[in-house]
Amino acid sequence: MTRVTRRYKFSASHRLHSAAMSEAENEELYGKCNNPFGHGHNYELEVTVRGPVDAKSGRVVNIGELDQYVAREVIEPFDHKDVNRDIPDFQDLVATTENISVVIERRLRRAWDGTFAAAALDRVRVQETKRNLFELRDL
Amino acid sequence: MTRVTRRYKFSASHRLHSAAMSEAENEELYGKCNNPFGHGHNYELEVTVRGPVDAKSGRVVNIGELDQYVAREVIEPFDHKDVNRDIPDFQDLVATTENISVVIERRLRRAWDGTFAAAALDRVRVQETKRNLFELRDL
Amino acid sequence: MTRVTRRYKFSASHRLHSAAMSEAENEELYGKCNNPFGHGHNYELEVTVRGPVDAKSGRVVNIGELDQYVAREVIEPFDHKDVNRDIPDFQDLVATTENISVVIERRLRRAWDGTFAAAALDRVRVQETKRNLFELRDL
Amino acid sequence: MTRVTRRYKFSASHRLHSAAMSEAENEELYGKCNNPFGHGHNYELEVTVRGPVDAKSGRVVNIGELDQYVAREVIEPFDHKDVNRDIPDFQDLVATTENISVVIERRLRRAWDGTFAAAALDRVRVQETKRNLFELRDL
Amino acid sequence: MTRVTRRYKFSASHRLHSAAMSEAENEELYGKCNNPFGHGHNYELEVTVRGPVDAKSGRVVNIGELDQYVAREVIEPFDHKDVNRDIPDFQDLVATTENISVVIERRLRRAWDGTFAAAALDRVRVQETKRNLFELRDL
Amino acid sequence: MTRVTRRYKFSASHRLHSAAMSEAENEELYGKCNNPFGHGHNYELEVTVRGPVDAKSGRVVNIGELDQYVAREVIEPFDHKDVNRDIPDFQDLVATTENISVVIERRLRRAWDGTFAAAALDRVRVQETKRNLFELRDL
Repeated sequence: MTRVTRRYKFSASHRLHSAAMSEAENEELYGKCNNPFGHGHNYELEVTVRGPVDAKSGRVVNIGELDQYVAREVIEPFDHKDVNRDIPDFQDLVATTENISVVIERRLRRAWDGTFAAAALDRVRVQETKRNLFELRDL
Repeated sequence: MTRVTRRYKFSASHRLHSAAMSEAENEELYGKCNNPFGHGHNYELEVTVRGPVDAKSGRVVNIGELDQYVAREVIEPFDHKDVNRDIPDFQDLVATTENISVVIERRLRRAWDGTFAAAALDRVRVQETKRNLFELRDL
Repeated sequence: MTRVTRRYKFSASHRLHSAAMSEAENEELYGKCNNPFGHGHNYELEVTVRGPVDAKSGRVVNIGELDQYVAREVIEPFDHKDVNRDIPDFQDLVATTENISVVIERRLRRAWDGTFAAAALDRVRVQETKRNLFELRDL
Repeated sequence: MTRVTRRYKFSASHRLHSAAMSEAENEELYGKCNNPFGHGHNYELEVTVRGPVDAKSGRVVNIGELDQYVAREVIEPFDHKDVNRDIPDFQDLVATTENISVVIERRLRRAWDGTFAAAALDRVRVQETKRNLFELRDL
Repeated sequence: MTRVTRRYKFSASHRLHSAAMSEAENEELYGKCNNPFGHGHNYELEVTVRGPVDAKSGRVVNIGELDQYVAREVIEPFDHKDVNRDIPDFQDLVATTENISVVIERRLRRAWDGTFAAAALDRVRVQETKRNLFELRDL
Repeated sequence: MTRVTRRYKFSASHRLHSAAMSEAENEELYGKCNNPFGHGHNYELEVTVRGPVDAKSGRVVNIGELDQYVAREVIEPFDHKDVNRDIPDFQDLVATTENISVVIERRLRRAWDGTFAAAALDRVRVQETKRNLFELRDL
């Protein structure tokens, strides 16, 4: 069993604001991340796939196909976008990077099994800045 | 003569849009950077100071004072902000990182001579992503 | 279940010397790390927290509270200090980065359960140089 | 139980070509990685060891001995070499970095138990470029 | 006057061997870099452009055009290639990274003036590994 | 004219304390860097050499000879040492990284002209942490 990780990048803006809290609570909890016009980041996304190495091709997964799949499900919708206003999943969800990671993982799972027969989605990791890293794991 | 460089970080969003061009020209020139809701980056700022090493303190510049100066002139106005809407300099200026660098250098020069007697402002460098770097030099 | 990692930095000096070995054994085992006056490093600390994302705040843990906790328990005692002489835990413990990691993990666990109800301490990782990494994991 | 990771580097060239496929299939699957004269990379290798911290030495493993072992089993055979032509394991094996990782792990296991009594080989990780990471884990 | 730097990557193999020296001299001078089958690297290329910021577009150079120009002149000929055998410039030139930098700079200059009217080619920098950096500057 | 940069690393401890100032002045100016037992860093040193590329060898300088020279003049005296107590240059000099850079540059110049005929010492750069960089340039 071998794990293969691909790293991707996207640049996006977001604003932390919860409809379930008052203005004052939002400002206290999120501080400068609550700035009304938003702010932005260079996000780094790691997608890890787990499976056996195919004897003929020497690969766990066709990397070109993985790149196309991740581009369609994640990079195109998120890159150079405003997460709060350009991505419908965040209509009723606070746009924290915790939730961005949850949404990315859910989007990657949607059509996974029909696309990558032998290789499981093992881990999704999002780095917001060099200080903040968010991760969902299968095993 | 010794050069001292300090590195700072700020996260901000921007949108590339020139009032001197049509919608179609904007979209052609700036592509996805023209997205109406903007997008964002983790910017890295390098400020370089040039001068002799003081015999008593062993320093070119008081680093605590430099940090406070850069925080007041640049980091506080830019960090966790939307450059187009939160910073008045960009009212009539396209918010490219070329212009962000020019504005940061101009802001740093404003009160420099009255603050740092012996040490000259040598270079300002802004990294937008690992692929893009913008720089203004004195010498 | 989402994992959130924060990265911290501290600069400290240490000397590798075991009271349970002779001078010659110390020099043979630790080499230049046994230099009597010590030497130093820029350590990088990763603290990983594991838990569900809170529906209201969109967070696994209050990051400001985590930062304060880590600052009080680890960064303040270790940053710009000599590990052997400034930190009492190393009175009878060789100041290897293995033991520095063990001590940091133990200090983080001390008041953890009373402070972070819902989020477990998942992993502690200390990077001594780009070549050396030390890690303790819960799961 | 503490995990210790050491990072190593080697520079090598390889060519992706499977004897089990036609020229056209090879070119379609591997693209520019199928270039007849090969191409190259700066590989980064992480070797992780797992075990208790020895009370006397404060170490999980003697790092000098680990370095010698990894140098002999991996770095010397791979560094500044052409993987396809200099390393016999790839006579009948496609030289993908998946297989390079499998071969490195197998070479590290060969004499492990006779060399490092108390410390288990926990993980082997090979980074081909900043976008590609390959990993084999024990636990 | 503002400087804009773009970073590019390419992976290639090379072999250090000078036709002007004997086998023994080659081996003594280049050591393991003289391995007959070659070895490889992930090269990082920085191209720096110097000029005024255009008032209308806010740019020093059209970055899309610069990327296309660098792709055609350098990245396509070098990426996933064997420098010694795939690139005719090295027929009679030792394939050191000093000479790779000289060749890249010469290739970039060839059609520069007809392509980028206002912006000068300021600097070309090639990183072979994190330890080796080669640079040609205009000013 | 080509510039070649080599990067080196050393780990050392230092304490900022000026004999020309009172205890209170030292504490105010240097803050936690004035801690009596010192603290430490992983320093990164860049040495840049400037000259023509030799037609026969394809090199600006013999890199093996440069490495030996830098090892003897700088890395061996500084690595895994306490700068204040192990290096005589700091007997009467505050051990700031400004002064460490000045001392390293002076040590590199001492025997330079007798060792490297054709290649000039162009620049010395010391990175103390990712936030602090110190540089001396010839041109």
